[in-house]
This record gives sequence, C-alpha cells and structure tokens, in this order.
Amino acid sequence: MTSDRVSDLSLAEQASLTSGATSWTTTPVPGTVRALTLSDGPHGIRRPAEDGPGVSFLGTSLPATCYPPAVTLGSSWDTGLAHRVGAALAREASAFGVDVVLGPGVNIKRSPLCGRDFEYFSEDPHISGRMGAAVVTGIQSLGVGACVKHFAVNNQETDRMRVSAEVDERTLRELYLPAFEHIVREAKPYTVMCSYNRVNGVHASQNRELLTRILREEWGFDGLVMSDWGAVNDRVAALAAGLDLEMPPTGTDDEIVTAVQEGRLDASAVATAAGRVLRLRDRVDRAERVAAWDADAHHELAREAARDGAVLLKNEGGLLPLDPHARQRLAVIGEFARTPRYQGHGSSRVTPTRVDTAWDALRAQAGPALTLAFAPGFTLDDTPDPSLATEAVALAAESDTALLFLGLPDSSETEGLDRTHIQLPAEQLELLRHVSAVCPRVAVVLANGAVVSVAEWQDDAAAVLEAWLGGQAGGSALADLLFGAHSPSGRLTESIPLRLQDTPSYPHFPGQDGRSVYGEGRFVGYRHYDTVDLPVAYPFGHGLSYTTFRYDHLEVERTGENAWTARVTVTNTGARGGAEVVQLYLAVDEPQPTRPRRELRGFAKLRLEPGASGRAEFQLTGRDLARWSTSRRDWRVDPGTFTVEVGASSRDIRLRSWLRTPGDGVLDPLSDQSSLGEWLAHPIGSAVLAEHLADLPFATTLAAGDAQLLAAAHQVPLVKFTGFGLGVTRAHITALVTEVAERRKR
Amino acid sequence: MTSDRVSDLSLAEQASLTSGATSWTTTPVPGTVRALTLSDGPHGIRRPAEDGPGVSFLGTSLPATCYPPAVTLGSSWDTGLAHRVGAALAREASAFGVDVVLGPGVNIKRSPLCGRDFEYFSEDPHISGRMGAAVVTGIQSLGVGACVKHFAVNNQETDRMRVSAEVDERTLRELYLPAFEHIVREAKPYTVMCSYNRVNGVHASQNRELLTRILREEWGFDGLVMSDWGAVNDRVAALAAGLDLEMPPTGTDDEIVTAVQEGRLDASAVATAAGRVLRLRDRVDRAERVAAWDADAHHELAREAARDGAVLLKNEGGLLPLDPHARQRLAVIGEFARTPRYQGHGSSRVTPTRVDTAWDALRAQAGPALTLAFAPGFTLDDTPDPSLATEAVALAAESDTALLFLGLPDSSETEGLDRTHIQLPAEQLELLRHVSAVCPRVAVVLANGAVVSVAEWQDDAAAVLEAWLGGQAGGSALADLLFGAHSPSGRLTESIPLRLQDTPSYPHFPGQDGRSVYGEGRFVGYRHYDTVDLPVAYPFGHGLSYTTFRYDHLEVERTGENAWTARVTVTNTGARGGAEVVQLYLAVDEPQPTRPRRELRGFAKLRLEPGASGRAEFQLTGRDLARWSTSRRDWRVDPGTFTVEVGASSRDIRLRSWLRTPGDGVLDPLSDQSSLGEWLAHPIGSAVLAEHLADLPFATTLAAGDAQLLAAAHQVPLVKFTGFGLGVTRAHITALVTEVAERRKR
Repeated sequence: MTSDRVSDLSLAEQASLTSGATSWTTTPVPGTVRALTLSDGPHGIRRPAEDGPGVSFLGTSLPATCYPPAVTLGSSWDTGLAHRVGAALAREASAFGVDVVLGPGVNIKRSPLCGRDFEYFSEDPHISGRMGAAVVTGIQSLGVGACVKHFAVNNQETDRMRVSAEVDERTLRELYLPAFEHIVREAKPYTVMCSYNRVNGVHASQNRELLTRILREEWGFDGLVMSDWGAVNDRVAALAAGLDLEMPPTGTDDEIVTAVQEGRLDASAVATAAGRVLRLRDRVDRAERVAAWDADAHHELAREAARDGAVLLKNEGGLLPLDPHARQRLAVIGEFARTPRYQGHGSSRVTPTRVDTAWDALRAQAGPALTLAFAPGFTLDDTPDPSLATEAVALAAESDTALLFLGLPDSSETEGLDRTHIQLPAEQLELLRHVSAVCPRVAVVLANGAVVSVAEWQDDAAAVLEAWLGGQAGGSALADLLFGAHSPSGRLTESIPLRLQDTPSYPHFPGQDGRSVYGEGRFVGYRHYDTVDLPVAYPFGHGLSYTTFRYDHLEVERTGENAWTARVTVTNTGARGGAEVVQLYLAVDEPQPTRPRRELRGFAKLRLEPGASGRAEFQLTGRDLARWSTSRRDWRVDPGTFTVEVGASSRDIRLRSWLRTPGDGVLDPLSDQSSLGEWLAHPIGSAVLAEHLADLPFATTLAAGDAQLLAAAHQVPLVKFTGFGLGVTRAHITALVTEVAERRKR
Repeated sequence: MTSDRVSDLSLAEQASLTSGATSWTTTPVPGTVRALTLSDGPHGIRRPAEDGPGVSFLGTSLPATCYPPAVTLGSSWDTGLAHRVGAALAREASAFGVDVVLGPGVNIKRSPLCGRDFEYFSEDPHISGRMGAAVVTGIQSLGVGACVKHFAVNNQETDRMRVSAEVDERTLRELYLPAFEHIVREAKPYTVMCSYNRVNGVHASQNRELLTRILREEWGFDGLVMSDWGAVNDRVAALAAGLDLEMPPTGTDDEIVTAVQEGRLDASAVATAAGRVLRLRDRVDRAERVAAWDADAHHELAREAARDGAVLLKNEGGLLPLDPHARQRLAVIGEFARTPRYQGHGSSRVTPTRVDTAWDALRAQAGPALTLAFAPGFTLDDTPDPSLATEAVALAAESDTALLFLGLPDSSETEGLDRTHIQLPAEQLELLRHVSAVCPRVAVVLANGAVVSVAEWQDDAAAVLEAWLGGQAGGSALADLLFGAHSPSGRLTESIPLRLQDTPSYPHFPGQDGRSVYGEGRFVGYRHYDTVDLPVAYPFGHGLSYTTFRYDHLEVERTGENAWTARVTVTNTGARGGAEVVQLYLAVDEPQPTRPRRELRGFAKLRLEPGASGRAEFQLTGRDLARWSTSRRDWRVDPGTFTVEVGASSRDIRLRSWLRTPGDGVLDPLSDQSSLGEWLAHPIGSAVLAEHLADLPFATTLAAGDAQLLAAAHQVPLVKFTGFGLGVTRAHITALVTEVAERRKR
C-alpha cells in the first residue's frame, strides 16, 4: 500500500503530507513532492482567485462553466450525459491546474428540507450510484481525480458539524451506503471525502468502521480519503481510523509526530496515509494537462444537461410545447425569466462564464408572428410590490398564453442551512392565482433545487415544467423545451409529496441535542409512499414527454443460479421524437413489510423517433434481490418470488413479470437459542429433534396443544423449554446442538 | 437493604431464594423462610389446580372472577374503579393463599398487531401509569403484592424471547418508561417483572441500566424484581444486573454459588437479592388473610367495569339506547351474543366463576312488549356456513332493529403471537352488509381485545359500540348499556386508524433477524396522527354518551416557578345522567416537530346528572412540560409556551388556554464544541466573545457576510473557526472557554 518513496521521507515530512498547505493545496515536500490542487465543483470548477496560508476560503472564484447541479443532472437519468459533464469538468479543472475535483456528491435526499439537496442526485441509491459513477469516470477519463462525497450519512445541514446520524445497520447498508459502494467498486474514484457529521456517535472523520473496514477492506477502495473542510476533530484518531488528508490545515501535524513518538500511533499509519498522497500524485501526474477549453462547447453541454433534466410534471390539453410561429400574444411573467436562479448557495457556487436568460432565449427563438411581453410580477428579495403583480395580471389578461416563472428565493437553498418548509413564496402563488383567473392558458416553469409543494396551486396551471436549477445555460434550455425544439425527457428522482408532513422523516428531521434519529429507516421517498400506499403529488420516476411510449414484450430470462436478464421493447407512439426513461423495479407484496414495496434496480433512457422501437436490457443479480441481514452481518438472499415491474414511474408500471430465487443457499447454524420453529424448518435439526425428544412430556404437551399454543411455541428458543416441567434438560439441548453440528460436518 | 436475617443463611440458602421451587412458588428455607405463592392475573387470579416440581405450567386453574382485561378497564378512564378491581383481585388472591398477583401490565400499545394488547391499557403512558398505579394500590391495599410488568419495551410477541427492541434513549424515556416510573414512584409496588426481550441488545433480565440504575437508583424502587417466566438467560449476569428472583426455576442456583466462590460475582449481590425475597415475605406477611370472597359482589364489580369500559363510537340518530319496553321486534344476531368472547388467550386466561351472555341479559332486561329473536349468523371457528347468514338476514328483514355482535376470533388475540392484520372476519362483514340492506336500524357491538379496522364497514351501521373484552359479566353490562340503564362512558385509550398502513410502526413491526427497530420513536398513536395531521377513524380519547356535555371556564393558574393548576367546569346538558372524561393536553405547534403535537397530561371522569355541573382540576408540573435531553441525559424544560387544551378527545378540544415557562433555569456549560450561536445566546459567552475576537478577521468576515452565511455560521462549533484564515487560533478558543468557566464561578 505504501509507496516505496515514502520511506525516503522523515516522519515530520510524512505527517506534513497528511494535511494541506492552504485551503486548496496539499503540502509539498521541497524538492521531492509537489503540492496538489483541489477545487470545489460538483457542477463547476470553483477556482479561488487567491489562495495561500491565512487566506480566507471565502473568496471570489475565476469564471468557469456552471453546469446544472446534481438535482438537474440526476433528473436526466442519462449516464452518458453525466459522463460527458464529468469529462468537461475535468477539462476545465486541468486547464486551471486543478488535480482533484471535489465531486460528485451522492448523499441520499432523506428530506426535501436538506439545504444541500440540490447538490445530490436522488432519494434512491441505485440512480445516485449510477449517475455518480458516470460523473467519476467522466472526470477521471482525463486523468483528473474525482472525490466522492460526503461519506457518509450526511443528509442534513442543521448542526452538521456535530450531529450524530443515528441510523440502524440495515438502513445504512441498504440506503445510505450503496451509492458509495457502487461508485467505489465500479468507477474507482481517486479520492473520497468524509462528511462532517457523526454516524452513530462517531465522527465520520474518525470512523474506522466506515473509512477502513467498509470502504477499503470490504469494497476495495485504494485511493485517498480527505476530510470535508474542517471535519477533523482529532488528528491522531482520524489518521488511525483511515483519514489520509486533513483539509484545510489546522497546524496540527506535530500532534501526529508526537503521537508516534509517544507510541500512541503506529508509524506505519502515517506512512500509509502519506503514501496515499503520493499515489494520488502519481495518478494525476499521469494525465496530460489541458491548456484551455472551448467555452462555447461547454456552454452547449450545460444547455443540453439543463434541457434533459427538466421534468414536465403536467401538460393538460397539450398546452406545451408552444408554437413559436403562432400569431399569438405570449406573456412571460416572473423575475426568474429575466434573472434566473440557476445554482445554489455555498461551496458549490460557481462564477459562470456567461448566463442565459429565458426571456432572451424565448425572444431569440420566437418567430415574427409571436408577440412576447415581459412582466417581473414580483421581486426576488421578498419585498412585496403589489404594483408588479397588478402589471403582470394586466399583461396576462391581454395575452393568449402566460408563462409563469416561479421559484424559490436564492436564500432558501444553501449549504449549511436546511429549509423549514417546502412552500413557494406566498406572493408568487397569489400572482399565479390572479393570472390564472384572467388567462386560461397558464404554464408554470419552476426554478428550485429541491422539492416544492405543488398540491395547493397546480390546479391553477394547465402545465408545470419543473426546471430545477438549470446552470448557466438554463434559460436557453427552457426555450428549447417550451417551443418544442426538444421534448422534455427528465424524470423525478425524488417523489413530490402532497404535504411536508407526509415525508417519512418529518417527525425526526433535523433532530435535537446533537442527534438526528433516522427513524424512518429504509423507508425514504417512494420506499415509504409505495409501502404504505400514500397518495403523492407526483411519484418517483414521473415525467411527461411531448410524445407517448408503448411498452411490450417484457421477458425475464434466468441466466444463472441468481442471475437474470430482463428485456422490454419500447415504442414511440406519438408524432414527435422523444426519450423514455424505462425503469425496472423489483417488488414484493407482503402483509407486513420486511422490505420496501418496490425498489429501483435498473433504468435506461431510450431516444426514439416517432414510430421507432428500442429494446432496454437489464441485468439482475443476487445482490439486487438481497437484504442486509443484521444477524448474519452480510447480504442475504431469502428464497422467494419478486415481481419484476417495468414502467414509466414507480406508480406507472406498464408490464409485470416474476422471478423466483432459491435463496443464496447459506444454511445458518442452529444453536440452543434457535427457536423451535427454526429447528423444525432445518433439514438436520428437525430430524435430530424427532429422534431425541419424542418420548418426553415436551412432545406430548405440544401434540396436545391447540394451534395458538403451537404457533407461539415455534417462536420459543429451544433452550427455553427447560424449566417448565416438560422433561427437557440442558443436557438434552447440548446433545441436540452437538449432534446437528456433527451431522453438518459429514 | 439486606435484611439482617440474610446473614444467618448460608450462601447456598441465599442462592436458593433467588429462584423458585415450582412454577408458582419461591423456594423455602426449611424452618426459616416460607415459600411465597405467585399467581398470574392482570384481570383475574389464575390459580393452577396443581403445582409442584416438574408439573407443567400449562394446566387448568381454579374458578375466579374474570374481570375485564386491561383494554376494557383502561377505557373506563376511572382510577377509582381500577383501584376497586385491584382490591377485589387481592381479596381473591388472599383467599387462594396467593402472595403476589402478577399484574398490572402497563406496556405501551405500539402497534394494534401486538398479540397481548388486550392485557395493556393504552398507547399513552400517562393513562397507562395512572390506571396501573390504581390497580397496584388496590391490590396492595389488602397487603397482597402487585407485580408491574413487563419491564421494559415489551411491545410485541413475535420472537419475544430474543428480539432486541432497538429504541432511542429519548423515546425510551418519554414513551416506554413513564408508566413504570409513575407507578414505582407513586404506588410503590412490591415487585416488578422484567420482560423477555432485549432492549438495545441487552436482555431485560440482564439489563443493569434498567433493573438497577433507572429502576432503583433513579426511581427509588425498593422491592423485588422477578423474571418473566423463562426470561433468564444467564443466572449470574441477571443477578449482578439486579434480577432478584428467577421464575420458574431452571436448577441453576449452583451457578450462583460457583460464581461467588470463583470471585466472578460479589457475595453481597446474592445477599441483596435474597434479602429482597425476605423483605417481600415480610411485607406480605403483614397482611391478614381473607378467607373467602363474595362471588356475587365481585361479579357485579366485573359488570360495572365492563359497562364503564365500553366505548360508543357512533350513534346516528340516537339509535341507542333501545327502549326495552317498546312494542318492537329486535333481532339479536351473531354467535358472540350467545357465546361471548370476554378475555384473551395465554397466561392471563382465567377460569371464570360464571359467564353472562348478552342474549340472556337482553331477554332478562326486556319488557314484555319487546320481541327478541336470536340468530347466530356465523360460527366461531371460521367455518363458513351460508345457511346461518341467510337465517340471520331473514330475521333482520322482519325486525325493527338489528343488534349485530361481531368480533375477532378467539385465536387471533393471544399471548405469544401477534396479529398480521386488523380486519374483522370477512364473513362477518358480509353478514353486516346483507343485514344493513334489509334492516335500516343496525347497531354493531364489537368484541375484540385490540383495535379492529372500522372504516370499510361502519357506514353499514347507525351505531357502533366497542365493548372490547368484557370479562365474565360482559353480557349483562352490554344489556345495561344497550337498554339505557346506564350511559356509555368509556373512551378510547388507543386511536383507531383508517388503515393498518397508517399506524406509525407499520413499516417496522415486528422486525426481522432478532431486531425490532422502533423507528417511529415517540410518535406512537395520537402522537403520530396529530403531529402529521393524518385522518383517523376515531381519535384517542373519543367516546360518545347518551347525554351531552358543555365545557366552560378554563382557568390556568400559575402556582409556582414551574407549577400550574388548571380548572374547568363541565355541565351535563342532556336529559340523561352520564359521565364525561375530561382530558387535558399540553400542545405545541412547531413548523418542524421536536415533540408530539399534543400529549395527555391529565384526565378526570365526572359523573353528572342532567343539568348538573362539575369541576375538574389538574396539577401541572415542570415534568409535564419537560422533554428528555440526550445531551444533558436528564429531563429538560425549555423556555416557551404551551397551549393548554381541554376536551373530549385529542381531536375534540373544547377550550384552550396558554402557559408560559421560563425553562428550568439550568445554564448548560460552554465548550469549544459549542456552536457560535450557542455562544452568542449565552449571557456570559456572548460578552467574552465580543471582548476577545472583535479585532480579528473572524469578526470582520462575519460582519461582511450575508444572512445565509451568518445563519450557517451560527451552527458551527467555535473550535471550527480555526484553520480558515479567520485569525482564530486554538489558543483563543482555550482562553474563551476558560474565561467563561471562571466568570460562571463568580
């Protein structure tokens, strides 16, 4: 693991490598090891204009392309697009001299209130892992390092530096870790960033279970783990746990040295961490530097991503697309059309190379017959201005169609702060109400980085386009969609609930007294709504197109003991080109849920011309069927049947098939604590039981018992049948357990 | 603690006292200590016909009065009644030579599926604690010992001997322990029974935190802790944890002796446990034996309890009460009218002295003009018999009114087994549908020990009387209510949800792999429904009367720093006598819940003649306002305002007032891990901060920050401001913390 050159460095030099020199560079060893440069950037390179010892990390940054944040990119369900965005990020990073891009962020959207949801992909780990892996391979295709973050269970901003995410082991394994696991195993990122928070009481930065046992020993990660900026609390404990690089520096390298000298820290731990810094250097040094990038081409890519990530929630009467050549009057209302919200607040904030506005783009794409007029309708700083609303309503009244650009205030979506509600500003909704009263054709275009409630106002609009945060080219992308040059093809990666109170984390979020109890467990998002059959405004996976699709010929072919291939044909049955996101869920239907009602296990985006058909293929493995067993402390495939559901959302299942698994064949051992039912269900145990206990009161009492007694007795650990006058002794039990163990050996 | 006579016993004798001699007696020391006799009995004495070494615990028992189980007694909300039932239990116990009655059971009804819900009082710990305390003081008023069970967090039967209830500390303190705490502090039970299950991984029988630290050291319990029957897994560990008596014996007393001899167990621990057995003997020996009891009087008490625990859920058009002297035809339908279900299955099952049926009682109370006819309608063994339904529908068609006695099969409510659904049998609901089609006046009388779903069928009945399990006199009690000799006065102690899926434990219950994760936390029952504003079929506290009540003059008087007295006047505004259960809730309204929307903090049952008024008075203390603080590891009263709500159910609040608490005045210490916001909110901390950091970039950067930056910064631990070029050093932080500590001392 350790680079052979580490041994040439002194302990102090090695220790110096395990923290940064500045906010954005690692520490060089003069004449030997160069400093590596890191940069924020899930969706754009944030290269500070100045950096150095003592320089605040809060500075302006140099212009770079602002791609749509993960909320939007994720909604494209297009891993190829994500790969291309990743590569473009790397190209810009390389030109800036940046060695590692601090992204992607793949935390689960546990609550729509999380202030950083806009930086994350989904409420679902499957799509988070696939989109994240695509970004990583894209970034690293140019030899720049990616940094998957924030590892782990960092799902809120409130008290993020102290809060303990109290999450049970099964939820951790089935919901909060799988995206990281997939990316580490499949995309092999150069680096991982630990999160600020505690996980079950232990700071992520000092969490050996996460940083070493799971990440490295179980998943095979061979890269470098760095801290989130300021996440280290105890340098020595962090290093011992598997944290290789503290960022930014706190001037505590001497603590490392002292700990080694005093025997509290193994010298090899320091060498290992320093060696990982060198290995990272080796990896990024293999890349050829890019001198410059094509700002126009990158802007176009940002536009494509914005376009493909917008989700058409509703479109009554086919209001959209608008005909840019119609002889009509189009009212463009809402300050966001002129002053777009295209990214969130915090460390991800990019200084864009340029910004497209929808108002400019709509005018540019409109034909001469279409009359466009703009009214801001409201201010962006929450200052009520009734005259703006009056003007906008007057404009709407004399227009054929009104496009309303609504959205969340810039201040409401920011790293470090969670929201407390999911409402749009009241004045915007009142404007909508008045506009819809005077203009029958209203389309709402939303700008927001996390879910907003739509239930109380969406009846006032015939069409709703959820455009999320579109990045610097979002304005042009919207014109592309609204005028029909492209069909919307984004799909929801998070459910839109009817009410905040319906979100399963509602009673628990964001916790108190330094704890956030993840009471809802695995049942987040559609895993909750579908399991308890609760109505939602729009389900996970939902999104309309300007065309329609038909699903045919679902086949599920078994290709191994626990391996299947599913195939389905999708046909564009409408008059326009478009893309369908085909979703495959594995579903169960249990009277008492032991797992979510359905879980996403595959998706494919098919672009189809009118009348064209495409075939989507999905591979399913035992892992896709497995649950985490807390008794086995490993994945477990129970024998049973799953419904294979293919459709256009979690609640728009078009075709169903079934697959049956024999289980993973692992026979758990029997002990005196195994229940009578487990003994009877066990091929060897039942035989041994019959041979040894048949003549005791135990057997006769059970034989005389009614159905209730028997059913209850089946749940009792075998050892508990001693002491009730049933003739069973501890010696009997010991003999039984021994006998089973011996017969298993044969 | 140790009796001075313990020292006279040998180690082996002491050890022998810490387990039973038979299933139902403690071990005597010949010539010195007599054996004590224990008996099952939350709602009746189950005195086995035979007992002795090697005799099965599953035998027939001698006749005793079968009072209504806790579900019914609890629904009376009448602590005086509960006290009288407790005293009656003690009288019978005494006559049987029983020293300790194994009850009451005060576990929380976490899920309607729990097979033992019928043995427990409520989903709410306040009423569970008050009713349980009343039973204990009743039992012990005759010098017989009570045994509060099952301590603790025993809320399911599935895998009950192994399952670990995984419950967070705050939920434990605020929901699952308070009933026990109240009873231990106020009613001083002689004994407590530990439960089978694990709590957060540790068997209750070996749980030192529960059995010693909390129960004895914190609550001051000075009695004896016995095991549930078979709950001990490790004699030595159990004894060391605070378990005094293992029942029934497993012949392992020698393990205790050996452990002492080998130095693995302190001899004083054995002496302490043995001393507690002696003390229990001393206590029960103070009582005078009762020779016999008045079976008729006890039957009448059972009848009163059944009557007062029945809950009139709906009564459209005042269908009930029926006039026993009307010249009408009354159809009595349902086998339960002739063959009542009046108790549940398991260790609580009593052999009754007699059993009243509703069919007999109705005929006995009916005047000569009323024509009654009976049809069983269905069988009780789930065997479909269409001819029974046909006969019943024909009877209903020619009747003016139909009384339908529906209920759960006997097999569905049993210790050791949980239910998997909350539906009444389909054939009963089909019968109801057909009956309601031919007879406009239908009243349903329910027999069930835990909640059944009513939403899908209750429109078919004008009246629904939830009679629960009525004990041996339940039939007569029903006639008393149905004919109006008494007005129903029971109220729900558990919410009736619209669907099982709405119950907050639904996705978590009953767990898997030996774990049951209590994900819903404190939000059980109305704490969930009211917090997330979810519709229910009937809310907690609901119940109709044949009369009506008016609430007036709610006063909330502050009587101390954190003490209030609330008073309200209730007037019977109808034409019949009746009783109202006045409920007091403390409520909060928070955008993000940190505690349940409302919590019961007082109740009073007022019996009022027509036109009469009564005054209910409630004392509120700081503890009623407190929450458990996991950081302080103690109760905490935050400054703030509560709404004092008084009403007839959690959703029928009649009057509101407010109280404001200054908090408990405890100023938490500041540390380097305290957030900037906590420093600024602290009277000393804010001053020290201003004095020391004003001239640093820290202050100027914050001053220049926008609102988002500032809000986010307020959440950052002070120590984290080092290392970001803000001029703050670790030395600064240390000086600040020291300064605050010193100024606090002054």
